[in-house]
Parts: sequence; C-alpha cells; structure tokens
Amino acid sequence: MKVSLVGVTGYSGMVLYHLLSQHPQVEKILLFGHSATATNENHRSTSGLPSYLNISDPLLPYDCQTIEERSDVVFFATPAGVTSQVAQPLINDNFPVIDLSGDYRLKDPLQYQKWYHKEPVAKETLRKASYNLADLSKPTSNYVANPGCYATATLLGLAPLVINHLIEPDSIIVDAKSGLSGAGKKLTTNSHYAYINENMLPYKVNQHQHIPEICQQLHQWNDQVNSIQFTTTLVPMTRGILASIYAKAIKPTSTDQLQEVYQTFYADHPWARVYLDGFPSVKNVSHSNYCDLGISYNEATNTIFVGSVIDNLVKGAAGQAIQNMNHLFNFDETMGFNLIPDIP
Amino acid sequence: MKVSLVGVTGYSGMVLYHLLSQHPQVEKILLFGHSATATNENHRSTSGLPSYLNISDPLLPYDCQTIEERSDVVFFATPAGVTSQVAQPLINDNFPVIDLSGDYRLKDPLQYQKWYHKEPVAKETLRKASYNLADLSKPTSNYVANPGCYATATLLGLAPLVINHLIEPDSIIVDAKSGLSGAGKKLTTNSHYAYINENMLPYKVNQHQHIPEICQQLHQWNDQVNSIQFTTTLVPMTRGILASIYAKAIKPTSTDQLQEVYQTFYADHPWARVYLDGFPSVKNVSHSNYCDLGISYNEATNTIFVGSVIDNLVKGAAGQAIQNMNHLFNFDETMGFNLIPDIP
Amino acid sequence: MKVSLVGVTGYSGMVLYHLLSQHPQVEKILLFGHSATATNENHRSTSGLPSYLNISDPLLPYDCQTIEERSDVVFFATPAGVTSQVAQPLINDNFPVIDLSGDYRLKDPLQYQKWYHKEPVAKETLRKASYNLADLSKPTSNYVANPGCYATATLLGLAPLVINHLIEPDSIIVDAKSGLSGAGKKLTTNSHYAYINENMLPYKVNQHQHIPEICQQLHQWNDQVNSIQFTTTLVPMTRGILASIYAKAIKPTSTDQLQEVYQTFYADHPWARVYLDGFPSVKNVSHSNYCDLGISYNEATNTIFVGSVIDNLVKGAAGQAIQNMNHLFNFDETMGFNLIPDIP
Amino acid sequence: MKVSLVGVTGYSGMVLYHLLSQHPQVEKILLFGHSATATNENHRSTSGLPSYLNISDPLLPYDCQTIEERSDVVFFATPAGVTSQVAQPLINDNFPVIDLSGDYRLKDPLQYQKWYHKEPVAKETLRKASYNLADLSKPTSNYVANPGCYATATLLGLAPLVINHLIEPDSIIVDAKSGLSGAGKKLTTNSHYAYINENMLPYKVNQHQHIPEICQQLHQWNDQVNSIQFTTTLVPMTRGILASIYAKAIKPTSTDQLQEVYQTFYADHPWARVYLDGFPSVKNVSHSNYCDLGISYNEATNTIFVGSVIDNLVKGAAGQAIQNMNHLFNFDETMGFNLIPDIP
Repeated sequence: MKVSLVGVTGYSGMVLYHLLSQHPQVEKILLFGHSATATNENHRSTSGLPSYLNISDPLLPYDCQTIEERSDVVFFATPAGVTSQVAQPLINDNFPVIDLSGDYRLKDPLQYQKWYHKEPVAKETLRKASYNLADLSKPTSNYVANPGCYATATLLGLAPLVINHLIEPDSIIVDAKSGLSGAGKKLTTNSHYAYINENMLPYKVNQHQHIPEICQQLHQWNDQVNSIQFTTTLVPMTRGILASIYAKAIKPTSTDQLQEVYQTFYADHPWARVYLDGFPSVKNVSHSNYCDLGISYNEATNTIFVGSVIDNLVKGAAGQAIQNMNHLFNFDETMGFNLIPDIP
Repeated sequence: MKVSLVGVTGYSGMVLYHLLSQHPQVEKILLFGHSATATNENHRSTSGLPSYLNISDPLLPYDCQTIEERSDVVFFATPAGVTSQVAQPLINDNFPVIDLSGDYRLKDPLQYQKWYHKEPVAKETLRKASYNLADLSKPTSNYVANPGCYATATLLGLAPLVINHLIEPDSIIVDAKSGLSGAGKKLTTNSHYAYINENMLPYKVNQHQHIPEICQQLHQWNDQVNSIQFTTTLVPMTRGILASIYAKAIKPTSTDQLQEVYQTFYADHPWARVYLDGFPSVKNVSHSNYCDLGISYNEATNTIFVGSVIDNLVKGAAGQAIQNMNHLFNFDETMGFNLIPDIP
Repeated sequence: MKVSLVGVTGYSGMVLYHLLSQHPQVEKILLFGHSATATNENHRSTSGLPSYLNISDPLLPYDCQTIEERSDVVFFATPAGVTSQVAQPLINDNFPVIDLSGDYRLKDPLQYQKWYHKEPVAKETLRKASYNLADLSKPTSNYVANPGCYATATLLGLAPLVINHLIEPDSIIVDAKSGLSGAGKKLTTNSHYAYINENMLPYKVNQHQHIPEICQQLHQWNDQVNSIQFTTTLVPMTRGILASIYAKAIKPTSTDQLQEVYQTFYADHPWARVYLDGFPSVKNVSHSNYCDLGISYNEATNTIFVGSVIDNLVKGAAGQAIQNMNHLFNFDETMGFNLIPDIP
Repeated sequence: MKVSLVGVTGYSGMVLYHLLSQHPQVEKILLFGHSATATNENHRSTSGLPSYLNISDPLLPYDCQTIEERSDVVFFATPAGVTSQVAQPLINDNFPVIDLSGDYRLKDPLQYQKWYHKEPVAKETLRKASYNLADLSKPTSNYVANPGCYATATLLGLAPLVINHLIEPDSIIVDAKSGLSGAGKKLTTNSHYAYINENMLPYKVNQHQHIPEICQQLHQWNDQVNSIQFTTTLVPMTRGILASIYAKAIKPTSTDQLQEVYQTFYADHPWARVYLDGFPSVKNVSHSNYCDLGISYNEATNTIFVGSVIDNLVKGAAGQAIQNMNHLFNFDETMGFNLIPDIP
C-alpha cells in the first residue's frame, strides 16, 4: 500500500510521517508540499526540510493526478483553508482522503465561515465528507474529516453521558488545557519560551474553532444538547490535552455506577482506558494513541466530573488519522501502533 | 518593629523571609524552628539551613515567651497540625499572630477533622481567630488565620458575583490549576521532575482541604451558597495558580456589564487588577502580590467565566500575610511590596 | 524468540519494554522482579506496577532456571549491585545476557569498588563479560555489559579523534549535561520539580561512575590516554544528554577536515549522524536511537569542539541494549527501531 | 534623584525598571523609547506597553536634551547599534550614562565590527567609555559600558586565577549555558516553546559577541592571555547562566587551596559567594544580584574547574547596572537590592 502525505513540516505531519513509517501495510510514503494556492506561497519551497526527519527526496509539488496515480490514500496535514481549495478533484473521483484540517468537519458552511473566518466549501460537497471520531464509528464515505484535538478529548469524555442521557443537556462545561504544540509552529508572543515557561493563561475563551464540531456531534448524539461552555487554557508543556468536563446529573448517581457505565461503553474499544481508581495524567498517554478517562460524582453539587487525557498530536491528530485509515481499509484499528507507551 | 518567624525552610517561609527583609517597618527578624511537638521531631535541628538563605544565626528553639518578649508579632509558616498544638499561650496573651497554616481557618472543629484528618482546636479558641482575606477586610482579632492559596484566588474571583447576588448559588464550578510549590517541599512520586515535567493531572478532586474555607466564606457573603464543585489540577510549573471559575447568571448580562461590576467592586483595592481586554496570564502576577482578573459572559449558555490568577506563594501565602500584618498595625496595605512586577 | 526482562519499573526498563514490544523477532516478553537479594527487599513485590505499562500479569519472581528454560536472552535493567550478585549461574551456562547496569563494565574490580562503593565481581568473571559500544563493535561473549549513558555520548564523540590519534592524549575535557531521567526514579532534593525547574547545577564533579569506563575504553583505543576531565551538569529536562567535548589538536586542522574524518569514520554506522552545518540539538535524537555529532575547530586556541547528543534512555540504555541483542543474534542492527524520529 | 531609562520593553529594561523602582535614592523614573534612528522604526510607538508593567504614562520620545534637563543619569537597555548612534551628545556633555548594550565595550572599533556586524563608534569616543565589571572596580568615567551576561559570569569565575597567575594562559575553556531570556524577546525558531522545551543545543560556537570583551579584560589582567575557547549552550529555562570554566594549573594545587584563594579574593565583595562544599545551582542566585562560585581541582588531569552562576538579567544586566550607578554616585554597592533571594 502506498500513501501520500501533504504537509509534513507541521507537528501533525511530522508525527503522521513517524507513525506511517512503522505501519506494516504501508510500503511507501510520498511527500507533497501544498503550494497549490496563492495564500500558501511560503510553503511552495520543497527544500528547507529539517534534517532530523531523515527525508532525502525533495517534496513533490502538490498535484491531485500524481496522488491518485501513485498512491492508495492521501493524508492532508495542512492548515485550515487548504483542502477547501484543492481537494475537490479527489472528492469527485471518490479517492480516499483523510483530512486532518478543519475544512470539512462542519456540515454548515456558515458555521465554518463564522469560526474559521475563511471561505467555506459548498454545502453539497461537505455532505460527501464523513466527520469520524475513530474510536466510536467507521467512516461512511471515502473523504474522512478527522476530528480536532480538543474535540476528540471532549467527545470521548462526554459520549457515555450524552448518549446514555445521564446529564442535563444544558449543563456541560469543559475546561480544556493544552500544551503548545496544539497551536502549531507559528511564532507568536504566546509561543516564546520565556513567555510560556512558568506561565499559563486562558485563551480563545468561548471562541475556539473546535466548539462547533463538538456541538454538532453532541447534538447528533442527543438533540437536546445545543451549546456548551468551553474554555481553552495554555499550559507550559509541548504535548498533551486534559479536558476537565463538568455536567449536572439528571438523577443522583455514584462514582461507582458511572465508572461502570464508562467501562461498559468502552468495553470493546481498545484505545479508551477507564480508570477505577483516581484520574489519569497526561503522561500516561504521551506519545500514544490512548484516551484515558477518570470519572467522579459529587453528591454535594450533583455534578459529574470527567478527566479525559490524550496526546494532542497522536490521538488528537495523526494517530486518529491512522485509525481512520485502518477503518477505511478494514485493517484492525490498532494496526501500526505500539501498544506499550513510551515513558517517561 | 521586630518580627518572629516560625518555619523558614518551607516555600512560604522562604518567601515570607524575603518579603519581611524588605519591609520598611521591620528592623529585625527572629527565626524559630517549630520542634515543640513530638510529631515534628524532624524539624528540631537548627542546622541544615540552605546557604542561599543568607542566614548566619542558627534557628532559635520554639518558645512562646521568647517570641512575646523579643518581638511584636509572630508569623507561623508551618504545616497543618503545628499551631493547633503550640499557639494557645499566644492567644491567651492576645499576642499578634499571623498563621499561614490551616489550623484556625475553619470555625467548625468537625470540618477541620474531616478535611485535615488531624485533631482540631477547641471551638471557643477558634472563635478568637479571624479568617481574613486581606484584600477585602481587616482582621477583627489579633490572631489572623491567613487564607489558603486556592481559597484566595477563588474567593477574589467570586466575591463580586456572590456579594452582589449575580449568580445561581448552586451553580459554582471552580477548575483550579496550580504549580508544584503549592504542594510543598515533600518528596513524592508526584513531585519528581521526570514525572511532572510534560505532564498535568487532576488530584484531590472534591477533596482539597481549601474547599471548606471557601464554602465558609461564600456562605458568610451569601447564605444561599452551601457547596461548590472544586477540582485541583497540577501543572508543570513552580509558582502560580489559575482559578477558572464558572457560574450561571441569575439574569442575562454581558461581558461589559460584568467588567464594570468588577471594576467598581475593586476600585479601591490596590492589589486586584481587572482586565477590560482578554484574560490575565499567571506570569503577569508572578513574584508579586497582585490578583489579576478577567471576566467573560457567554450568552449561549448563560454562563459567567472568571479567570483569577495569583502567585500562590505571595498573594496566596506570604504576601497576603504581610498585608494582614499591615492591617493589624495600621500600615498602608501596600507597604513593603515592590509594585513593579519582576518579569520575565 | 522469547526474551526475559528483569526490572521493568525503572526508566530504562520501561523504555526497553516499549522497544522490545515492537521488535519483529520478539514474540514474548517475560517480566521478572529482582528480589533475589536481601538488599533489594523493596523490589520483591510483584504488584504496584504502573497501569500505563499495560502489564496484566504479575511480575515473575527472579529465578535463573526459569529464565533459561523459558527464554532465549535476558536483559537486566537493574540498579548497580544486582547482577553482581545474581547473574553468576547465567554466566556459568553461557546464557545470553544483556546487562544495562554498571556491574560488569570495568575490568578491574578495585575500580568498581572505588567508583560504585559496592562489592565487585571476581576478576575472572569480569573477563567473561564483553563491554560493547554497540555502534562500533559486536559483543565478543554472551554476557554483554551495555555502556552507560554518559559513556556512550562521550565515546561516540571522541572515537574518531582518539582512534585516529588527532588530539593530545592528556587534553580531553568533557562537559556533559543530562536531563533528570538519567538519575533514575529515586526521590531526592535534587529531583523535586520545584528545585530543578528553572535550575541547573554541576554535580558529581570528577566523581561520576561513568568516568572509569570511558577511560578504560579510550585507553584501549589509544594507550596514551589515561585520564579525562569530566563534569556532569543537571539541566531541567526529562530525557537527553549533550556531551560537549574539548581537546587540543595534535597539529593545526580545520572544521572541514574534521567533519570529513567523522563522516568517513561513521560512514557505515546507521545510528551516528554527522552534521556538516552547525550542531545537533537534543530534540533531534529524542525518543530515537541516534547519536548526532557536530564538530568545530578553533584556530585561535587550536582546540577541537565536538557536540554529541543522545537520548539517554534509548541510545544511552535500552536502545543500545536492543542493538547489542541484534548483534548477538546476527539481526540487522537497526531491526526493531523506527528510523523516523518522534518529534516534537 | 531622577533617572531616565531608554528601552523598558526588553527583558533587561523590565528588570531594570523593577529594580530602580525599589532603589531608595531614586524618586522618579522617566521612560523613553529609542526611536531616534531609522533602523529602529518599530520601536517608535509609545503605546503597546504590557499592562503588567504598571506604566500609566506613554513613553517619552528619545531626546538627549530632555534626558539631561530632567534627570541625573540615563540607562540604555537597548539592542546593539542604538547607543553608538544616539549617545554622542551625552558623552560630549559628560552626562552620566550606563549603557547595557555592547556598543562601547570594546576598545578596538574593528573588533566591534567583526563580532557585532555593525558600524562602530570612533576610537577616541570609545576611549571615553569605562568598561566596568562592577564587582571588581569602579567606573573611571561618566560613560559606563556595562558588561555582558556571559562575560560577567566568566570573568568573575576567572579573575582570581588569572590575576594571581595560577593557570596556563592558553588553557582556558569556558562551557557556558544560558536560559532563553539571554537571547531576548525576538521570535525565532530557536525561541519557540515546543522547540526549546525538552531540548538543549550549542549555538554560536566560538562566535558569541561576548568573547572579545572577555579576552580584552583577561588580557588587561594578564597580558599573556590572548584567547579562550568559548561555547554557548541554550538550555530550557528562562533565567540563569552557568559558566563551567576549565584551565590547567601552572603548578599542582588542591581544592582547599583554591577555595582559600577565592575566599581571600572575594572577601570584601558582597555579591560574590564562594562555596566551600560542592557547587552552586542557578536557583541559588535566581532573581538576585549574586554570583556564586564553586571550585574543584583534579589531580589526575591537573585541571581546575570553576562553576560560576548568575541571573543573567540581574547580575548579568540590570543588577550590575544599578551597582555601577551606585559606584558612580558613591552609594553603597548593595543599595537598592534585597539581599535575601526570592526562592523557589
């Protein structure tokens, strides 16, 4: 099997390249730049690849025909606004695409415009894409919109509660924390080491672009859920997300009962681990494809707390993309991953 | 003015010693060990002081009489369970005490026992202590119970909402994050560098010992508030707390209105800074006595979000203790502090 | 092929378990505790394994016969002082052993005693062990003494200079820096997060136990080298070593000439990468088995500077151990490794 | 006493502002931008000051006359290339200037050009500036060239050895490590959090612009010293320098003897602390004006090792600048500093 990868220089692309290189079904990886659009002028160059990536060949210039002729699937690890402009021919040909960007995640073009401040794809095209949380379903089309990192941690944490109708639908509060790699390689005041080291700060409060895809999915699971309170906080680390989730229980319950609900829900899901004692730490999933979950019920406030941790670049991006590829080609969903974490 | 300091080797004690040494009214600092009780055997030694503290004299053995005779006020920067056993003579003599530990914070001895798992002080003695959030009031007695670090960030963030009855009393959720110094110098698996670096984790969920003092104070401000949802998360940094506070508004409001409420509330309070644009980062208050506050209202969920940041060792411990000393002796509450932060 | 692993709970053991689990020739990993000796009482327990290791079976009690009967090779990821007491039967039977500890590295028992402050193995037994820097040679016996982390970075950095007689033999100075995982999981004042974060410090100056194995190997390469100046510095990171190496050139040379020497020397060595432009950073080898090398010559001081970086837990311990196993069983030395680094 | 400060937005400027605000002799601080030159266009704006600096007034536009009329001394915390263009009128008027930049440090204009790649000041003007390491001497003119951070740590570490002729003059090797604040606020690939966290790397090997001022000073102390080997390494921390210094002893000595030499040398110098046991860590001097020194002699290699640590923004920049101001106005050299460190 041959795969194409568009965009290897960003963090997700680098991790994807690492994971693809150890997948037993992948015999060749073709690397493409994504210079097709005027707005991505600066990515046109095929040189300047970091030496540590061990890439000897120059990047190929982006070209749909080459991709289709020379490979069996293509991954896009590109920023927002790229696939919306260049992927149409692949959709037309029903060629397998796994898109790590946000361009095809939202079914409503106006929502995309509102949250991404970019030109959306046409509604009928969006319908052909399958937003697929790889741990809970298989893609329903050949164009997979891979979920965002915050969305993955949040949705896996909320699924058992929302699908089983255990919580008040308007009571969901998510306090999500992320390391710096989630914001990409862009140089900003916020990403300077001397600023972020020994620092943490809320950012994009109620404005993060992963909010609408979370609401869209929750609403699909339970149409009474229409909105959530969602705060993102930057913490001084490179990789990792902790989504701290709060919701009011519909009726009094207990920590034990809830743990059982989660265990039952995730019984056949190899990448979700439910803790019966305490809460997971981000390091427990670092560099792995796991989502680890801890649950607690507080009688005094009738509130359920869920701690959901992932590595934002693996489960929250490249790892889930491989999982979606495994689904698409009917491989086992754990294929290509090392199940033993790489710690410390 | 001469001050006694019991417990200089812990983090709060070290910062207190630093701050006292630059206070214009303090001419001498007497340093005491706190070996009076059998349970603190290991603190008996007066040697082993870190050289960087620039302390040439050995610690004095703890003795109430010496303290009263040779100084005008005593600070206790001791772990839970010390002042409950050794401070009674000072209370009897109405000698000025500022106690950074939790021993005299809770008015109900059973609550102390429940949350601290230690023998409480008698109820009538507890009544003689004044739990005093230094930014909002002055001590009403000579024995000041200095608030805990999480409690300070949380209460300063909630005060305008609770005192002005702007939120549903049973809707308060606090997601508080702290660096490692909050947990003290104790060596545990959780405090090992290789464990905490590139890691974060929820801990003591609904079980942190600062919860009852927060509820006690909130209830005093508004007797409809009886409980809160409170989660503590360890993040990889040394100093700093971010309390992320959520509550449902009693009636629809706006970010602008709320910012005005906070500005009015904190107008004459030199150590609270209300942001009109965005949210504070922990670094903005690092090594300072400030509490910085950002507020946001979300129409979609009718939820108010407040970000409250402090340096846990200054505003959350030693700095507030000095502020309480300033109150006790009628000094200006900013006396002894450098108002310009020490950044980066 | 079945392998036994004694000591999975330390950092090297954890990484070894991760790497063995992805080795194509390894079908089973048996995990043993190492409680055979009274001094290791605390390791006797077979419970208490971290859940993230995904180990369902309890650890087997240490037993040479079981190891020999049920596996083809055994790895010891144990602290100093264990294999010296328990490995003799395996040596007697010429069973393949890869020992990550320092017990069999030094040929002179008195040196072991001097630097490790422990009882040494008998001289004739030591002779049966093969100290083998896996990038430069193959083991000459079935008992492999795997080199230490500092020794690996230093020796790979010095080999081309010492073997080619390019430097003054008494002029070698190594300023080696390491992250915290190099010091193991032991809780000490030095390992507390709040102490090491935003800190660095020289430690064990001229006293690090890897000094004698470096000198032993250098002397074997060039008998004029008898001693080196070696300083170890702790820096605030988890994984990684940078050995900064200085030596006087025997005759004036140039950066270009030296880079060519290194390229030639390492031409057929897949795990050493020589930089022609600038110096490697630790991140370039993080979580990988590479040793990256940069070289520079300073005319003004006639001094050669070499920067040598490795991941101390992979190339400096578990990775090299796998490499040595590959040598022992005539597998390709890159077998079982992902050649694409896992960055950031 | 009134002081002017040109350049408050860089790290040194921020720390200088903090320190000046607590100096008992400073009653007013005037803040100036440094927009006088075309090459600093981007600094022209007087808005955009970080709110945490507590600066209510806008920056004054740079103007020598205003500075001279309204203040008694001016500090320049500006990048290289500014004072060389704008300070001439102040020199002509013999107005007290403390220049934290490198523009007036080197006596030879060609050296400045070679190392800074900028247009130098005329030789006769350079003669009017006094390069003054504040711990060892007093300025000899009203224009003080404040030493660089690496130079300060290195020179204080080498002074007793070089001045007392204890080492081979051509044997000096300095392996200096610095946190990120030393490189300033500029956004570069090297300063991105996700790159530097869990990383370290040599940079500017033999090319750092502090090398010539170190050699100039060493040569002045001992004219046999003409060059040094000097490597700079970036480590993942914000503040702090460790200069690890190596040199061959002229005749065999001992650690004890050397410690005595250092103690005698620094006996009357309040800001240098000599360790008799072990080596200093950077945290011991963090946020303080101290330089802490540890010394060790290795018989086997006849090599002296000195570990010298400073806070690069205090002792290595703003603190030393205040010390130089204290010298210039005959204040005690510890005036304005808190002698108790602010730890952790």
